[in-house]
Amino acid sequence: MADTLERLAQIIELRKEADPATSYVAHLFGKGRDHILKKLGEEAIETVIAAKSGEREQIIYETADLWFHTLVMLAHSGLHPQDVLEELERRFGTSGIEEKAARSGGGSASPPRQ
Amino acid sequence: MADTLERLAQIIELRKEADPATSYVAHLFGKGRDHILKKLGEEAIETVIAAKSGEREQIIYETADLWFHTLVMLAHSGLHPQDVLEELERRFGTSGIEEKAARSGGGSASPPRQ
Amino acid sequence: MADTLERLAQIIELRKEADPATSYVAHLFGKGRDHILKKLGEEAIETVIAAKSGEREQIIYETADLWFHTLVMLAHSGLHPQDVLEELERRFGTSGIEEKAARSGGGSASPPRQ
Amino acid sequence: MADTLERLAQIIELRKEADPATSYVAHLFGKGRDHILKKLGEEAIETVIAAKSGEREQIIYETADLWFHTLVMLAHSGLHPQDVLEELERRFGTSGIEEKAARSGGGSASPPRQ
Repeated sequence: MADTLERLAQIIELRKEADPATSYVAHLFGKGRDHILKKLGEEAIETVIAAKSGEREQIIYETADLWFHTLVMLAHSGLHPQDVLEELERRFGTSGIEEKAARSGGGSASPPRQ
Repeated sequence: MADTLERLAQIIELRKEADPATSYVAHLFGKGRDHILKKLGEEAIETVIAAKSGEREQIIYETADLWFHTLVMLAHSGLHPQDVLEELERRFGTSGIEEKAARSGGGSASPPRQ
Repeated sequence: MADTLERLAQIIELRKEADPATSYVAHLFGKGRDHILKKLGEEAIETVIAAKSGEREQIIYETADLWFHTLVMLAHSGLHPQDVLEELERRFGTSGIEEKAARSGGGSASPPRQ
Repeated sequence: MADTLERLAQIIELRKEADPATSYVAHLFGKGRDHILKKLGEEAIETVIAAKSGEREQIIYETADLWFHTLVMLAHSGLHPQDVLEELERRFGTSGIEEKAARSGGGSASPPRQ
């Protein structure tokens, strides 16, 4: 269970050059960044709707879709889930997540963004 | 690194009853489900905008925010990251993620939703 | 041009009971509220992506999709575009839109919501 | 009522160069495109959540916010609400909206995109 995200990232790396007719990952990469981002956004909306309904199975299913498409977006951006997990470690490992997130809705980063 | 999500979920469980004045998690729980879902949706939008810009640091930061607020939503729904990771394992462990996800954009679940 | 939204709302009213096989509006109503909301959210994401790209034709097209699906949502909720336009009139007719919108990102209404 | 959107667009044009300290429109323009798009996306999420709740006043309020921020986005992109209304006229004036929208969820434009 522990390294599910990493193994999933490896599968995405392996399949992104596959035949789009048989691989959904290759299909997404073939469509390009805007399509991947559209799917990521759609899955977020579906997760919100599922969570608003409060149906457990649907929440799990839609969140899995959301995380999966997030991993595809990371792969397409040349990033790995570890990059995100390290950022989370950095925040809450020093108990800093609370303060940082509290600032204007998780607004600014360290080092400062933009 | 491996169990970052699980440890983060534990921290969320510990803090959800804390003082909203000092804990962002408690603040979110105090605001209730709609506020948590609004934040989840906002972070998804910000992730999409960051990924469209292609700025690595910003993508990592916004994705961390997105995953964090997803974990808060799961906790608020009485769910754990393992539930989602098991769903992902179930899909790609049997190589089934490709077929399932390909069906109308990750549309139907197993057992079938709706 | 002036009453495009109202005429479109009338068309939606007329078609919502039509054959879903030939009418997209009837198709949406047949699928139900969650599907309509999912479409509304998707079109918002596509509008954001189009605007981020800065391509005029695409922005116009996606915004038209967004407004159309907003009208379908309003019809499904028993509301009319006039209800929304009157709210906008109420705000900026008294120059109040600035103050209200400025409060925490357009957060609270007058009379107060929630 | 008829030309509410156009008058609102004029107000936005007038205020976009105003003092960000007193004008919310000027504040948004000062923050730039990504901030405007973030707000547009947030208001879409809030509209979805309100419509899912089924509370009429909240739906009206959030849809007004969504349309307002769409108008700000259009102004920031050098576009006018007429551009969008003409696109809608073009579609349903020739009864074309049904067919076009039905194609893969309102996917392709005329002239065809992508």
